[in-house]
Amino acid sequence: MEAGALQPAAVGTMSFEAALSRARDVVEAELRRALAGEDGPVARAMLYACEGGKGLRGFLVLEGARLHGLSESRAAPVAAAIEALHAYSLIHDDLPCMDDDDLRRGRPTVHRQWDEATAVLAGDALQSLAFELVARAPLPPEARATLVLTLAQAAGVRGMVGGQALDIAAETAPAPLTLDQITALQARKTGALITWSAAAGARMAGADTAPLLAYGDALGLAFQIADDLLDMEGDAATVGKATHKDAAAGKATFVSLLGLDAARSRANSLVQQACDALALYGAEADTLREAARFVTSRRK
Amino acid sequence: MEAGALQPAAVGTMSFEAALSRARDVVEAELRRALAGEDGPVARAMLYACEGGKGLRGFLVLEGARLHGLSESRAAPVAAAIEALHAYSLIHDDLPCMDDDDLRRGRPTVHRQWDEATAVLAGDALQSLAFELVARAPLPPEARATLVLTLAQAAGVRGMVGGQALDIAAETAPAPLTLDQITALQARKTGALITWSAAAGARMAGADTAPLLAYGDALGLAFQIADDLLDMEGDAATVGKATHKDAAAGKATFVSLLGLDAARSRANSLVQQACDALALYGAEADTLREAARFVTSRRK
Repeated sequence: MEAGALQPAAVGTMSFEAALSRARDVVEAELRRALAGEDGPVARAMLYACEGGKGLRGFLVLEGARLHGLSESRAAPVAAAIEALHAYSLIHDDLPCMDDDDLRRGRPTVHRQWDEATAVLAGDALQSLAFELVARAPLPPEARATLVLTLAQAAGVRGMVGGQALDIAAETAPAPLTLDQITALQARKTGALITWSAAAGARMAGADTAPLLAYGDALGLAFQIADDLLDMEGDAATVGKATHKDAAAGKATFVSLLGLDAARSRANSLVQQACDALALYGAEADTLREAARFVTSRRK
Repeated sequence: MEAGALQPAAVGTMSFEAALSRARDVVEAELRRALAGEDGPVARAMLYACEGGKGLRGFLVLEGARLHGLSESRAAPVAAAIEALHAYSLIHDDLPCMDDDDLRRGRPTVHRQWDEATAVLAGDALQSLAFELVARAPLPPEARATLVLTLAQAAGVRGMVGGQALDIAAETAPAPLTLDQITALQARKTGALITWSAAAGARMAGADTAPLLAYGDALGLAFQIADDLLDMEGDAATVGKATHKDAAAGKATFVSLLGLDAARSRANSLVQQACDALALYGAEADTLREAARFVTSRRK
């Protein structure tokens, strides 16, 4: 199916805030169902780590699916999968041997709430759960296999994990990273999963992924610049995690390289780029456009 | 396809030792190809962790595929996937916050050779790689989706990770585990992946998985009892990892609960059970029968 020849959307558009809140509920219900009957510390830590986030990635999956005429119930396991995968990455990034963070989403990190072994295992099991959820979504086998393949690539050493490795290496590098290097690093560390989430609906429908991939790439980079702005301007109580860490560590960020004003302006032009990429979808994609504006205006 | 109505095997049977060695080569080539061009520490640690093992799981995949008339090249990515997943589990199990081991397969563990962050990330990326390899194997989409689903279940909180969590919890439990509890724990910790490997070939072919599942279950338990025997009787130089750890830690094992002779006899009867489960396959399954005998006679 071409992106230009859309099926009627399964449900009408709602406001971004309503759609985001709805996506969080759908994802949480799906994860609780997936872990029903498991009551050990690892399963409890898995659910804990999935709570309290914005749910942006799950929202992107559901909204992209809706744009392609797929019902919420068919897309829900895929939305839950990306939130599970994202939560795994946060648990492991927060470990003492990585970023050593005590606070995440306004609560103790998993290794502080439980212990390091539970944190490693909960992250590991969340990654497995992500692939399990995609593999048993009520979608054609070809779509499931493609979603698994692209998710694994986005998550792995050429994607998110590779970006995190570059980020850690940068801390001990002789010179701060250049703008090109940071852009490449962030495209892997945070961009890959956001882009995957945006394009998942088109993949489910076997449609052209190009518009949503372009939207996701611009959104992902805008998201990261906004994160750097929050790290510089926010306080931990509002943001829900430690702030001013990058400056304290002498790390190059979009803000340190571009300056506050230019970073803000770059983020805004990426938002415009993201919105423009959705032209083919017309007004049906307005909620995704709102999402793009949200990522640069958020306070946490 | 029914297990009773087998396609002619793609290649003839070879001796177990030759087939095991061949499987190691096939897996290594597949993993090197998958990581070609990646030369950072994480990618190097991923390959390092996949080297030097017996390669039993990859062999089981290839041999099960051969039994169902599937060529080596179609099964090779799936064989590489299970070895990647197994290697990830070893890297994370060896971490200081888990079993805290310095030696694995006769070499320093990944966190000793590099550092903990690299070990966490290499394990994480190996898990992603496992699902990537299965998802892009040259097999029908339905088979790939089923293999991903069952692998994710075998690896996750209801499978391998859950077993490892039980194992860690047992260390601080007030009473040693009973035989039933250890059997259930090991069925998840080591059994789930071995059983998955054994049944993968039938899944690839869309054939009845029951005989190979029964074979895998018996083999997995025999394997674990043999491991406990090695821990009791072996020395680290031969086994390639620390031995006598369980007794030193006061942990209940098959050997501590059954005694040496009864444990050995139980392992042997499980080997017989594994061989019997292959009756439908006739002489074509002789290499798998040799494999079952091997796991209880191995010295490492």
